Amino acid sequence: MDAQISFLDRLFSAGLLLDTGVDGLYGRSGRFEDVIAAFERLIDRTGGGDGAEAIRFPPGMNRAIFEKSGYMKSFPQLAGTIHSFCGCELDHVNLIQCMDAGKDWTKEQEATDIVLTPAACYPLYPVIAQRGDLPADGGLFDLQSYCFRHEPSKDPARQQMFRMREYVRMGKADDVMEFRQLWIERGTDIMQRVGLPVHIDVANDPFFGRAGRMLVNNQRDQNLKFELLIPITSTENPTACMSFNYHQDHFGTKWGIQFADGTTVHTACVGFGLERIALALFHHHGLDIEAWPEQVRQELWG
Amino acid sequence: MDAQISFLDRLFSAGLLLDTGVDGLYGRSGRFEDVIAAFERLIDRTGGGDGAEAIRFPPGMNRAIFEKSGYMKSFPQLAGTIHSFCGCELDHVNLIQCMDAGKDWTKEQEATDIVLTPAACYPLYPVIAQRGDLPADGGLFDLQSYCFRHEPSKDPARQQMFRMREYVRMGKADDVMEFRQLWIERGTDIMQRVGLPVHIDVANDPFFGRAGRMLVNNQRDQNLKFELLIPITSTENPTACMSFNYHQDHFGTKWGIQFADGTTVHTACVGFGLERIALALFHHHGLDIEAWPEQVRQELWG
Repeated sequence: MDAQISFLDRLFSAGLLLDTGVDGLYGRSGRFEDVIAAFERLIDRTGGGDGAEAIRFPPGMNRAIFEKSGYMKSFPQLAGTIHSFCGCELDHVNLIQCMDAGKDWTKEQEATDIVLTPAACYPLYPVIAQRGDLPADGGLFDLQSYCFRHEPSKDPARQQMFRMREYVRMGKADDVMEFRQLWIERGTDIMQRVGLPVHIDVANDPFFGRAGRMLVNNQRDQNLKFELLIPITSTENPTACMSFNYHQDHFGTKWGIQFADGTTVHTACVGFGLERIALALFHHHGLDIEAWPEQVRQELWG
Repeated sequence: MDAQISFLDRLFSAGLLLDTGVDGLYGRSGRFEDVIAAFERLIDRTGGGDGAEAIRFPPGMNRAIFEKSGYMKSFPQLAGTIHSFCGCELDHVNLIQCMDAGKDWTKEQEATDIVLTPAACYPLYPVIAQRGDLPADGGLFDLQSYCFRHEPSKDPARQQMFRMREYVRMGKADDVMEFRQLWIERGTDIMQRVGLPVHIDVANDPFFGRAGRMLVNNQRDQNLKFELLIPITSTENPTACMSFNYHQDHFGTKWGIQFADGTTVHTACVGFGLERIALALFHHHGLDIEAWPEQVRQELWG
């Protein structure tokens, strides 16, 4: 914990992150953004030959689709719904009086049709289902968006609003598993080239409550999700900077994504936690980008 | 209205925007994003020599700062607060039963410390105030973020989640007014170079309720805010694609941003509605980027 606060304070002092007064919600300096942009270009160079279709969703998604996704069953504590004032002029007078008196004015806000995106690929599946049958060789998609997770923390590697870059593969089980294995190898290679120590392990997601523990065990036993871990603010508890997730036919069945012969597609995704990767680079190579090892700078800025 | 729906349908058919099932919330294709990125580089080339400090905030901001900003007084209907599930395991069981029964489960969500950013510069002022006195020549900041406005619409130029690029100038009244005038000229010039018909007019913001009408009149009478208008889905009601806003010492006083001699800074901002500008380009030059006039392509892609 002390190491987390100390790293966050150093990032503030160096002007790389900007304090907004809320834990896990930070402004980014131009230099911080340069690192993210350079790392994204490295991802582009690695995956660019695969012919993925680029799609960029805004940081929010359709609430009805979010509800159907089942996210609230597993991670209710992390989700963020968007609420608005929907009252008349008299309600507005009351609202302002309530605010001026320093009371809680948020109770009267009403849920809109939008929730914050919990992971970049959530809005994708129903959009692809809409298009009709997938060709026999499936599909490959390149996504990036800001995501939200309500977990206020002093650990700069655990932010409430952060960017996730993802590739999503839809296809036959073998193709999808092969894609996931390819990216475990590519991800490991990329990180080593930019001088970051990594290891791969099965994932440990924060499923909610006692019932959630069963889901954790299920995920572990079936090797459905792996993570690429890099020590940032702790060597005992390294941070998941990439994840490699095989969904089997879960999303294919839920959203009705099929091949022309009526069989359901399998899906897998690989996700990059862009802020976490930038923070790993700052932790391992120092806060002064000019002083980073020449080989790392070469990989990132050519 | 028909023109708006027709343009939206054409954007969907061409695959430039992707339907999410919520009006004003769309996915963007890679081609759409290429246009936004190219236009941002054009902004960079225009303003890049001014030495602005780049800062990128996430799409949400500190709720306490938002409350103090006064936004809920003027535009309560547009704001979006973020709410989360904060209950125990039993509450979670009830929540899931409520969702499964198709009832409204959002009433139990509790407001977090974060609200969606209504305009890219809102999080900036308190951050700059924190730093202490401003030098005599003031400051200049370069911002971009996703913003939220709760105004569901079939007009593709009125989205609930969209990106705003901004330059914010802080300084003496004369310096700040000069900055605003410079960008009115630069903005007009940029738009003409990419083949868009523009005119400048005083702004017409959707202040809430009857009391809001006074604020509209005040804004108009004092020439505090101008807009650069381009016809997109209507020639009678062209769309504001840029705005040029002189805040006088409003934000300087509110956040305590001062010079070393204790006088309060004045501020002004210039904002680009990036999605609106991209849509204006598609409307005026067609949905096939390859077929855009050579001069426009040259300005954007060099």
